[in-house]
Amino acid sequence: MTQATFRQQYTIPYFLCDRKQTIRLSMLVNYMLKVSGEQTAQIASEQQQTFFHEQNRSWIILAYEFDIKRLPRRDETVTFETYASEYNRLFCYREFKVYDEQENLIVATTATFGIMDLTKRKIVRIPEAVAAPYQATYNKQIRRTNKPEPLQTEQALHKAYLVRYTDIDQNNHVNNSVYLTWMLDALEADFLNRHDMCSGIIKFEKEVSQVEQVSSYVQTTIEEDAIRTDHAIQSADVTNARASFYWQRSV
Amino acid sequence: MTQATFRQQYTIPYFLCDRKQTIRLSMLVNYMLKVSGEQTAQIASEQQQTFFHEQNRSWIILAYEFDIKRLPRRDETVTFETYASEYNRLFCYREFKVYDEQENLIVATTATFGIMDLTKRKIVRIPEAVAAPYQATYNKQIRRTNKPEPLQTEQALHKAYLVRYTDIDQNNHVNNSVYLTWMLDALEADFLNRHDMCSGIIKFEKEVSQVEQVSSYVQTTIEEDAIRTDHAIQSADVTNARASFYWQRSV
Repeated sequence: MTQATFRQQYTIPYFLCDRKQTIRLSMLVNYMLKVSGEQTAQIASEQQQTFFHEQNRSWIILAYEFDIKRLPRRDETVTFETYASEYNRLFCYREFKVYDEQENLIVATTATFGIMDLTKRKIVRIPEAVAAPYQATYNKQIRRTNKPEPLQTEQALHKAYLVRYTDIDQNNHVNNSVYLTWMLDALEADFLNRHDMCSGIIKFEKEVSQVEQVSSYVQTTIEEDAIRTDHAIQSADVTNARASFYWQRSV
Repeated sequence: MTQATFRQQYTIPYFLCDRKQTIRLSMLVNYMLKVSGEQTAQIASEQQQTFFHEQNRSWIILAYEFDIKRLPRRDETVTFETYASEYNRLFCYREFKVYDEQENLIVATTATFGIMDLTKRKIVRIPEAVAAPYQATYNKQIRRTNKPEPLQTEQALHKAYLVRYTDIDQNNHVNNSVYLTWMLDALEADFLNRHDMCSGIIKFEKEVSQVEQVSSYVQTTIEEDAIRTDHAIQSADVTNARASFYWQRSV
């Protein structure tokens, strides 16, 4: 069975880019979710959408794995492609691909989704009827996904952030893209100016709600063929998210 | 003489909106500047653009005055219109208008621009040749523009913000739109949820550079037919920007 694939084209405005004139990772993720949201609006039946509303449930993102050849540039028109590739009783894996105008693949991302019961704040089983329209393959085996490297917060650098009004999304928790902003902002400006991210993994562990202060920890390791930065977002004694990013010197 | 008017249409993605599903003011300003930047790219001669580059000069924004009937909504397609209305030796006044799909005017903004010598960090005279393509009216009289109301920082509430990597623009200073984010975030979430901005004035007084911490002060006054919030952004003992916004209860 072929998955239901959905494509949309966007031109990246300058104000969603950083000083290197390429899109901010947080904004890339926002575009990806916009595209998958529009696929859902198009193919999910009214009945399926009522299920989420009536049962107070929502798709949430548990992890991203990025593979970046290069990021879309300011004013560049790129195509976002997405499809749900596979699901099991708890998780649905969705692929996101970004192509340039010559149809070269420039970014590939795998996202792990789950369904949260917003009342109980727990991940619940994915009903077959909800998964069906996406034509993803059912595979009862839960995938062994890559994990961020552990980080010793005692030895890590950190910056503190207060949750802002605009960081909160409709679920009343901090939007996923904001964790990426906090993580990357904890790196030195000089490092960000001179390096490009080539891959990364982020796992969301516990939501951050409003009126909280978080700490963004970072630790840098020089590997043979890349620089690795390990990240953790913590509020009080809870780890909210972890990530490892791999970087090359900018050319 | 009629001014050179420029129009562009944009659809507002959800991720540039806040919890009320209308565009964030900082993002509205970003769109306006994108549209005026594209007008400049289209009508300014190569010679005029070389002038800015060679002399290390740049247009900068000194003030905005907003008049808001309603803000563009999530997924709404709106038309941004702009023209330079008038200039004198130091300032150029530019109008921005936002229309909905039925061509109703929903937001009107006047921006005051100046030309900065980026080496000396001083406002310099606007050369006639630079202003000419915009067909704005020359009026040697400097306009008396409205000003934000004064604020007593000792009696005001405040929140502290550290400048983020992505807050900095190509001039190596904090982007104008970020001041709006700091100002509005200093208000209570509950207030923002229940009120809509109907007008406002912001004046940029002194740029914020990287590695600075700023304080965002706010003071609320109940007036006869609106609530007024007065704002100041300060770093060390310097005032970087001031604003007054007027609000109505959301309906």
